[in-house]
Amino acid sequence: MRIGMVGYKFMGKAHSHAYHTAPYFFDINKPVELVAVCGRDQAAVTAFAKKHGWQSIETDWRRLVERSDIDAVDIGTPNDSHYPIAVAAAKAGKHILLEKPMAMSLAEAKEMYKAAEAAGIKHQIGFNYRRVPAIALARKIIENGDIGDIVHWRAVYNQDWIVDPDFPLIWRLDKTIAGTGAIGDLGAHIVDLAHFLVGPIDEVTAMTKTFIKERPLPSEGGGLSATGSAQKGEVTVDDCFAMLARFANGATGTFEATRLATGRLNYNSWEVNGTKGSIAFNLERMNELEIYLKDDPVNHAGWRTINVTNGEHPYVAAWWPPGHILGWEESHIHQVADFLMAIQNDTLCNPDFSVGVRNQAVLEALAQSAKSGGWVKVPA
Amino acid sequence: MRIGMVGYKFMGKAHSHAYHTAPYFFDINKPVELVAVCGRDQAAVTAFAKKHGWQSIETDWRRLVERSDIDAVDIGTPNDSHYPIAVAAAKAGKHILLEKPMAMSLAEAKEMYKAAEAAGIKHQIGFNYRRVPAIALARKIIENGDIGDIVHWRAVYNQDWIVDPDFPLIWRLDKTIAGTGAIGDLGAHIVDLAHFLVGPIDEVTAMTKTFIKERPLPSEGGGLSATGSAQKGEVTVDDCFAMLARFANGATGTFEATRLATGRLNYNSWEVNGTKGSIAFNLERMNELEIYLKDDPVNHAGWRTINVTNGEHPYVAAWWPPGHILGWEESHIHQVADFLMAIQNDTLCNPDFSVGVRNQAVLEALAQSAKSGGWVKVPA
Amino acid sequence: MRIGMVGYKFMGKAHSHAYHTAPYFFDINKPVELVAVCGRDQAAVTAFAKKHGWQSIETDWRRLVERSDIDAVDIGTPNDSHYPIAVAAAKAGKHILLEKPMAMSLAEAKEMYKAAEAAGIKHQIGFNYRRVPAIALARKIIENGDIGDIVHWRAVYNQDWIVDPDFPLIWRLDKTIAGTGAIGDLGAHIVDLAHFLVGPIDEVTAMTKTFIKERPLPSEGGGLSATGSAQKGEVTVDDCFAMLARFANGATGTFEATRLATGRLNYNSWEVNGTKGSIAFNLERMNELEIYLKDDPVNHAGWRTINVTNGEHPYVAAWWPPGHILGWEESHIHQVADFLMAIQNDTLCNPDFSVGVRNQAVLEALAQSAKSGGWVKVPA
Amino acid sequence: MRIGMVGYKFMGKAHSHAYHTAPYFFDINKPVELVAVCGRDQAAVTAFAKKHGWQSIETDWRRLVERSDIDAVDIGTPNDSHYPIAVAAAKAGKHILLEKPMAMSLAEAKEMYKAAEAAGIKHQIGFNYRRVPAIALARKIIENGDIGDIVHWRAVYNQDWIVDPDFPLIWRLDKTIAGTGAIGDLGAHIVDLAHFLVGPIDEVTAMTKTFIKERPLPSEGGGLSATGSAQKGEVTVDDCFAMLARFANGATGTFEATRLATGRLNYNSWEVNGTKGSIAFNLERMNELEIYLKDDPVNHAGWRTINVTNGEHPYVAAWWPPGHILGWEESHIHQVADFLMAIQNDTLCNPDFSVGVRNQAVLEALAQSAKSGGWVKVPA
Repeated sequence: MRIGMVGYKFMGKAHSHAYHTAPYFFDINKPVELVAVCGRDQAAVTAFAKKHGWQSIETDWRRLVERSDIDAVDIGTPNDSHYPIAVAAAKAGKHILLEKPMAMSLAEAKEMYKAAEAAGIKHQIGFNYRRVPAIALARKIIENGDIGDIVHWRAVYNQDWIVDPDFPLIWRLDKTIAGTGAIGDLGAHIVDLAHFLVGPIDEVTAMTKTFIKERPLPSEGGGLSATGSAQKGEVTVDDCFAMLARFANGATGTFEATRLATGRLNYNSWEVNGTKGSIAFNLERMNELEIYLKDDPVNHAGWRTINVTNGEHPYVAAWWPPGHILGWEESHIHQVADFLMAIQNDTLCNPDFSVGVRNQAVLEALAQSAKSGGWVKVPA
Repeated sequence: MRIGMVGYKFMGKAHSHAYHTAPYFFDINKPVELVAVCGRDQAAVTAFAKKHGWQSIETDWRRLVERSDIDAVDIGTPNDSHYPIAVAAAKAGKHILLEKPMAMSLAEAKEMYKAAEAAGIKHQIGFNYRRVPAIALARKIIENGDIGDIVHWRAVYNQDWIVDPDFPLIWRLDKTIAGTGAIGDLGAHIVDLAHFLVGPIDEVTAMTKTFIKERPLPSEGGGLSATGSAQKGEVTVDDCFAMLARFANGATGTFEATRLATGRLNYNSWEVNGTKGSIAFNLERMNELEIYLKDDPVNHAGWRTINVTNGEHPYVAAWWPPGHILGWEESHIHQVADFLMAIQNDTLCNPDFSVGVRNQAVLEALAQSAKSGGWVKVPA
Repeated sequence: MRIGMVGYKFMGKAHSHAYHTAPYFFDINKPVELVAVCGRDQAAVTAFAKKHGWQSIETDWRRLVERSDIDAVDIGTPNDSHYPIAVAAAKAGKHILLEKPMAMSLAEAKEMYKAAEAAGIKHQIGFNYRRVPAIALARKIIENGDIGDIVHWRAVYNQDWIVDPDFPLIWRLDKTIAGTGAIGDLGAHIVDLAHFLVGPIDEVTAMTKTFIKERPLPSEGGGLSATGSAQKGEVTVDDCFAMLARFANGATGTFEATRLATGRLNYNSWEVNGTKGSIAFNLERMNELEIYLKDDPVNHAGWRTINVTNGEHPYVAAWWPPGHILGWEESHIHQVADFLMAIQNDTLCNPDFSVGVRNQAVLEALAQSAKSGGWVKVPA
Repeated sequence: MRIGMVGYKFMGKAHSHAYHTAPYFFDINKPVELVAVCGRDQAAVTAFAKKHGWQSIETDWRRLVERSDIDAVDIGTPNDSHYPIAVAAAKAGKHILLEKPMAMSLAEAKEMYKAAEAAGIKHQIGFNYRRVPAIALARKIIENGDIGDIVHWRAVYNQDWIVDPDFPLIWRLDKTIAGTGAIGDLGAHIVDLAHFLVGPIDEVTAMTKTFIKERPLPSEGGGLSATGSAQKGEVTVDDCFAMLARFANGATGTFEATRLATGRLNYNSWEVNGTKGSIAFNLERMNELEIYLKDDPVNHAGWRTINVTNGEHPYVAAWWPPGHILGWEESHIHQVADFLMAIQNDTLCNPDFSVGVRNQAVLEALAQSAKSGGWVKVPA
């Protein structure tokens, strides 16, 4: 399984590490080769390749996706290039692991899915949080009926890294590259978790806001540690959104994401209430799952904090004894392991591009509602 | 200060205890007399009066508000009687402490306010959570500018006492008596806290839902411990609501309340994010306030859990040494103490009926939006 | 039931409030009269009596215990007077509610118990934390066998109010009045909880330490808010202790108490491990009990946080609906209610002076071991 | 830097992963080669080598330490072989990374240290928890004087994996192989953290206990997942210990470790109180450090939960943006990275064998006190 990767910043580093590590912990028997990594800055990508063990580099993704010594393409670039790279990779017959958000529009996403299906490749979308053991366990608990019928979902994904008005205008704040702000960056994740844990969303109403309308242009690079220059530019994406939703199964939902919630670092937090119980989660304590079961006797009834590090919990058998917690990166290791095993064993990827399409449809309805001010049906 | 009280169930019990206790802890020098308590069930109200130290009873509130040996009327009845009792009490020149929600409609609320002002009485609305020391401290911290300009507000007030479909159709689930469900019962509180901590709300969009449309009629009484009969009736109020809001100062807000959040007992929980810090609170741990300050040095920066039991914190000097926590009822003791001191010292009550009117206006906009599906301006 | 109380500072205030309030919430049908409060400072005790509703005052406890219009004596004075007052009150045939620690020595405690038994009075020792609903629930859970056989007990009772060397030398730091420092003040409580939840202690080894050997003499009073003068005096009691213990049932135990644990305000915290489960508690979150049950299925196994506010939990039926938390003072209200009901119904008090004697025996062994450096058997 | 590793179970897996990963995240420029792994079961060690990327195997550690293609030996075997392997490796001029506890006795530990020093090799002892960023940060905070002079230390390291009497008698419960039970397995860690954060321990008094005196012999292997056979054998080590300590700087300390604390999985938890502040930590939430600062203004004073994932925190710059938490294994990656960098840059290892000797001295005093029942000076 020979991998080519496009993008070598935050996600590139996480994915690289995952390709290195997955085979040591999971049942991947075919050898995994890190054949080539691609980026536009030759010096930077060369240094990255050396540090992270990639055998070669490319500076044009068009060359990478055409290389015959590559079986699968991992796409972790800024959002505007997801569509062309994924379509080209599919056409070249490469399997694809694609970072979220899937695309710049629902139309793009649908075409990507169609191209992937037409090519008969494995296609997976990078909703890595499904692979956090606690979240995978939540899914099992819900499927098992332990919390009954779902009544409410509420999720926030809050961070604070742009609360300072001097934080520069990196690509994630530029609509032409990122498409959206908190919507695609954070909202895509919590919408996916709602899909994973509750089911399809029927309709939404939403608001967005951009508090800081101008920021210093970045003096260099554009990564999360970029510094600002004297010149300013317009912020063209949302700083935050909030959304109400109605699920197909009758549950109600609330969603919020912001990057100006001072003190919240990576606070992907949700709660689901059912007729027989409830579950709550917070990514900053990602090894813990909170669960309440309504039928507990009154002298034992309370929210339980499950330390999700038991070998019988999802993904955990590969790791350490109980109580030895996992880190954020393990969600990526699990994601890559599942992707590689799907290729190795010729099984379907999950979540695949169809899941990405449904996700994009909700994000599009969200953005449309924020403009129109009314409820918007999620397009089929 | 001679008190007459209408209503003797949950709120009546809490208020009774507060009138007994407030003078032992706060600077109330004029004697407080519990002159009469009023309820329709003569046997029950007589038993209550004996247990809780009321000197006499009435079974018709019209008689109570006319009694010349009463200076102030405390109204803790079901919502549909707030308006007539309050207007009559005002016209009789009695000071009023009125439980929330203020009224069945904004029109009623405005009239009540007008009547109270015309009569020159003291009028206070029972938003007791402003008197939780941690919440009063939050207000001080915000006023002091410690968290900068407010960007986001999010609040949920979740309970679970009607999640069982066999829970009977008590008055709180009957629109003709309660007006609304979660909106007036729980929403009124979190809207008030938003007003207290953030400021006026400009416009809202909301949804409501009634999951359980029929319930057993109560076999007796109608209190929280009522049991159901074989016959069923229609639930005519909302089980829950969710709302997005825009504040006048530019902040965004989300609100949710439900009584079907399995495992959440009295989960009045909110978070406010500012440009320099954030504050979070949860009524189930009401002695704690969580605060984050952005300018902390990186080696000391974290969410602080303030144990709000220091003599310098609001209301606490009256009580115990640090670390000896207060209970829920203390919010009512503080409320009554403030009401009595306003009468004793001839100062204004806060929050008074004007605050109740603003609150009712938001609840009305909420309900209207839930019907119309669009954004609704909060009426002036 | 006519009460006379000796002592009117921290404990006097708490007990006063409890006598006022208990009858409104518990089944106390006989009238409770607050006949007289006693203290040496006439002006201060007069002011206290007025504020807290005592009908008369005394300045000499010898007069109070002899008054024929008093049925029961509540003793909340500094420790050195517990013995003479309690013995005199017993001889005068008065029921006694006595604050902890019971006495200055085991010999005193035994005599007090003997005098009380000889007089046929009701005698109760003020281990109020047994009356915290969560702790009473823990006892029920253990008695029910839910956590199996107890293996380990660990408790700390940590505070920080003397960490500042300028905090004055109040009576609690003076051996002639207090007998001991953290041992009697805090240790008595956690030893009692160990007796309540685990059982008798066989032998102990301990250390004590006084970090701050000199402190300013108090310029006035001696209460917790005393200020210091220029002159210094020697601290003659322990600042802290730590102790290992072996229980009669084979369990091991650790105990620690200090008043120099910066940031711990009233941190009475313990954990008990059994062969089938564990329980943990922290007084700063006194409405919560944490419990772990070993036989839970792995997908549901975790520490449960029981919000101990359900009407089926001990003492709670008297109060509010679930989730409306109780405060520290309620432990005193419950204590007084139990004392009054024992008098009213002519039943035994629990914990009575025999429990106080066992407690004193452990404290004496603790102090002796701290001197000798070896294990000391708890005297029978 | 060519590595040979002895031992391939729990620690072997953790160390393997660390050698693989450290160079991708830390400044290790010289190539790291995993030359050989050694174990007695040829089939098992061969499978391990294949899975974890070791180039060759050995079945006799004497051969491994002599191999000329190896620069450093990593020792993660059961305790009784630490001494012979380490001394042989030192004599062969190999650098050593040695798992804790250092040895079976203080005498062995001293010889090992002497041999390592004589050979001029790099020697490091595997107290990996010093490399948890939160703990490294605690050290910085203490060194900076932020919490003043240390007054108290309390630590528990509790687990529950042998609470079931049917758990088999694996090597960790056999004195001839393990030396001690909870003492060396868990106690070594918390004694090291006390050394790291507080300083030298002067004297101790302790108790140990073995609750379950017989267990099924393991039917196979002996790892943590071993199953029991019908035949039973005697448990010859301590199930638990508890210890009081006096530090050279005057602080008091308590220590406890057990493997029968039902519900505690890997609960390495400690608190340190100083005259200006306090710090608390719990390994099950290893990305969080709790800190209290006494001089905070009363309206901001509280325990702060630092999310130790900021690039300015120790070790974190190598990893992810704030809020993306690290896992337990990262402590081993950091340990190996420091070891490799010490070799690469020819600097001293820390903690080296001298730290292991001091640790062993405390463990020896602990065990001696548990027998004698009195205080024991820690040997120099």
